[in-house]
Amino acid sequence: MIAYVISTGDEVLLGDIVDTNSARICKTLRESGIQVVKIAAVPDDMDLICDIINEAAECCDVCIVTGGLGPTQDDITALACSRVAGEELSLNPQAYESMTAFFESKGAQVTEENKKQALLPESALVLENKAGTAPGFYIRIKECLFFFLPGVPDEMRIMLDTEVLPVLENKFSLNRIIAVERLTVFGLPESLVGKQLESFESLFPEFRLGFRADFPVIEVKIVQPQTRILPSGRIKEARQWVMDQLKYKISSKKGRSIAQEVGHLLVQKKMTLAVAESCTGGLISNMITDVAGSSDYFLFSGITYANSAKINILGVDAKVIEKRGAVDEETARQMALGAKKISRADIAVSTTGIAGPSGGTDTKPVGRVCIGVADATGCTGHTYTFNFGDRTKNKQIFATMALELVRRRLDPID
Amino acid sequence: MIAYVISTGDEVLLGDIVDTNSARICKTLRESGIQVVKIAAVPDDMDLICDIINEAAECCDVCIVTGGLGPTQDDITALACSRVAGEELSLNPQAYESMTAFFESKGAQVTEENKKQALLPESALVLENKAGTAPGFYIRIKECLFFFLPGVPDEMRIMLDTEVLPVLENKFSLNRIIAVERLTVFGLPESLVGKQLESFESLFPEFRLGFRADFPVIEVKIVQPQTRILPSGRIKEARQWVMDQLKYKISSKKGRSIAQEVGHLLVQKKMTLAVAESCTGGLISNMITDVAGSSDYFLFSGITYANSAKINILGVDAKVIEKRGAVDEETARQMALGAKKISRADIAVSTTGIAGPSGGTDTKPVGRVCIGVADATGCTGHTYTFNFGDRTKNKQIFATMALELVRRRLDPID
Repeated sequence: MIAYVISTGDEVLLGDIVDTNSARICKTLRESGIQVVKIAAVPDDMDLICDIINEAAECCDVCIVTGGLGPTQDDITALACSRVAGEELSLNPQAYESMTAFFESKGAQVTEENKKQALLPESALVLENKAGTAPGFYIRIKECLFFFLPGVPDEMRIMLDTEVLPVLENKFSLNRIIAVERLTVFGLPESLVGKQLESFESLFPEFRLGFRADFPVIEVKIVQPQTRILPSGRIKEARQWVMDQLKYKISSKKGRSIAQEVGHLLVQKKMTLAVAESCTGGLISNMITDVAGSSDYFLFSGITYANSAKINILGVDAKVIEKRGAVDEETARQMALGAKKISRADIAVSTTGIAGPSGGTDTKPVGRVCIGVADATGCTGHTYTFNFGDRTKNKQIFATMALELVRRRLDPID
Repeated sequence: MIAYVISTGDEVLLGDIVDTNSARICKTLRESGIQVVKIAAVPDDMDLICDIINEAAECCDVCIVTGGLGPTQDDITALACSRVAGEELSLNPQAYESMTAFFESKGAQVTEENKKQALLPESALVLENKAGTAPGFYIRIKECLFFFLPGVPDEMRIMLDTEVLPVLENKFSLNRIIAVERLTVFGLPESLVGKQLESFESLFPEFRLGFRADFPVIEVKIVQPQTRILPSGRIKEARQWVMDQLKYKISSKKGRSIAQEVGHLLVQKKMTLAVAESCTGGLISNMITDVAGSSDYFLFSGITYANSAKINILGVDAKVIEKRGAVDEETARQMALGAKKISRADIAVSTTGIAGPSGGTDTKPVGRVCIGVADATGCTGHTYTFNFGDRTKNKQIFATMALELVRRRLDPID
């Protein structure tokens, strides 16, 4: 079962919109065990649309086409489909009826322009659109089953789930899902992750590894390219092998982000978290609070950019800053202890460093970060020098390292 | 001049990532007068990549391919290209040198795995990647000029602008459009911005308008399609006309982000800033500190997610929270006043709201945000309800609105 996904519309080719429909369709089909081998987008041009429908009809079992079902002159997908299928367009009573019902539910009437939307190829069957005016349809051309859906993302999504999937399940008795396992890796560049896992293919030929760099972490994916059924323990074995190679560089065995993993552990342990940020400037807090439900464990963060704020609000010893500077392990420790104390959290983490582009010295270069981690067992200080030559990237790696140290404190390796 | 845009990568076909690169490339090419007639994506599969390179070579003048230039096993684009071109892969000295320089600048050394990234088809010419390890390259296959770029969006964008466009301009003597004026608009969807400016073209036929949505702001560009010299006052007139239509929806007359604009105004006025965030969870602080030099004016932010932190650290009246709730204009005002007081900043802004996905009630729905702005003239409270159906987007619009209110306080319209 292989599939082709096609978007139509000048706005896609002009770069005015990002095509999010295709990713959605790919994900949905994958979950039904259908592999998408090609995505394409073409403008509202009769020849180009006909060509691509022809191409899909030659090479695939299923093709999902979005866009071009609206009422205006540039909506020509149904006409293109009828030409390739060698059929006439005619008013489809079911499509017309469901469109009329939609308009009536909004207290409006079908216009002559909208009537065009019910003109479908003769052998097409209707896919109902409960969220908009353009009905969809499906039709067989050669050996390929085509589904035509509107391009409006909300309408497309509902119809994909409620109209397309039931037809696919019925026609192809789908039930197998491609196994996918995800792991999150931090602290190694993609090239080294690849190197450490290079014997994977010979050990587990039935799977394939995928890598996705989402700075500063790498997602490693174990995918099963075919839909045939494998012994269920086999993918676990593959996952364990990957974990054994990468050891403590694995921040999540479930493909979670480090902030999600930290949240998960805090909920599990019924603990609360506080943060004191200087150089990361709110990024750690933002990463934590991007996770839904973080209000259950995240109490407070003090973004103390100014030394006066470090001293007056977090209670850092002014003499320590005077003597050793703000970018210092002892300052970081006192920041973490201060945040923990004033918020009464169970664990606190702090950062102070130099994100750049300027502000570095010989002894404290751009990229230097000091991190403190305080909990009931005590407070540790850590110093690193990362430099990715970019303020935003430096902030990201500082923040990720800080969260990773919290994660390791919560889930130490034996 | 017609072009084809190709993305490679399993992650695209699995629906794990939305392909934003293609839209970016289409927009950039359009501004150079090149029309994209097809976008496609294929997985990391040798046959499928070769097929699509062949297809593009047959039908287009220019083809831009992204992805698959990394150091791991699944990065096979250069190999596929060499097969279609009928050339061997060999170590390209320039690519190797630029990669070595990149690694050295990070204090690292080129590994054997990375060396693979400098293996290019023999007739390929290098496109430098100053932001990452994978060099790009360009090569002619049949009548089509192919550009191969990394899939990492940040690297791709820089290389597209600084490496690909100069080659295209040189080879095809394109009339490149020059962007002349940029304005940042906040508070209107792109369609309404377009509608409000629809008579621009008839009033100023010598210019063209461009729009780029960068949620939640829209960048409006006034571009001059030809390089001929126009009376210098004319562009100012066009800019003034746009400003008159959009009035206070314009956050920056220079195309700055709102955080940059706020920073610029604070430096100009020699003022300092503090923040108190609840629902935005650090995002405001992060936006402020992404601006280099922000340590000159940004003193402190208290991310008081827990009510106890609002009360104990910012000094919000416990009775107010008890009686009116945390998501309340009076709570927001007290948070702003508290942040201003404990940091001794000249101006402070606060947010408290419900980012979702859950936590809303009938009277305080998801999307509700209360914002306080305090300075020497007093403290105002503001309530809005935005709901973009997504926690991250809600946080972005809350944070942007808060910064925009600071901007308006610093730069009021007469």
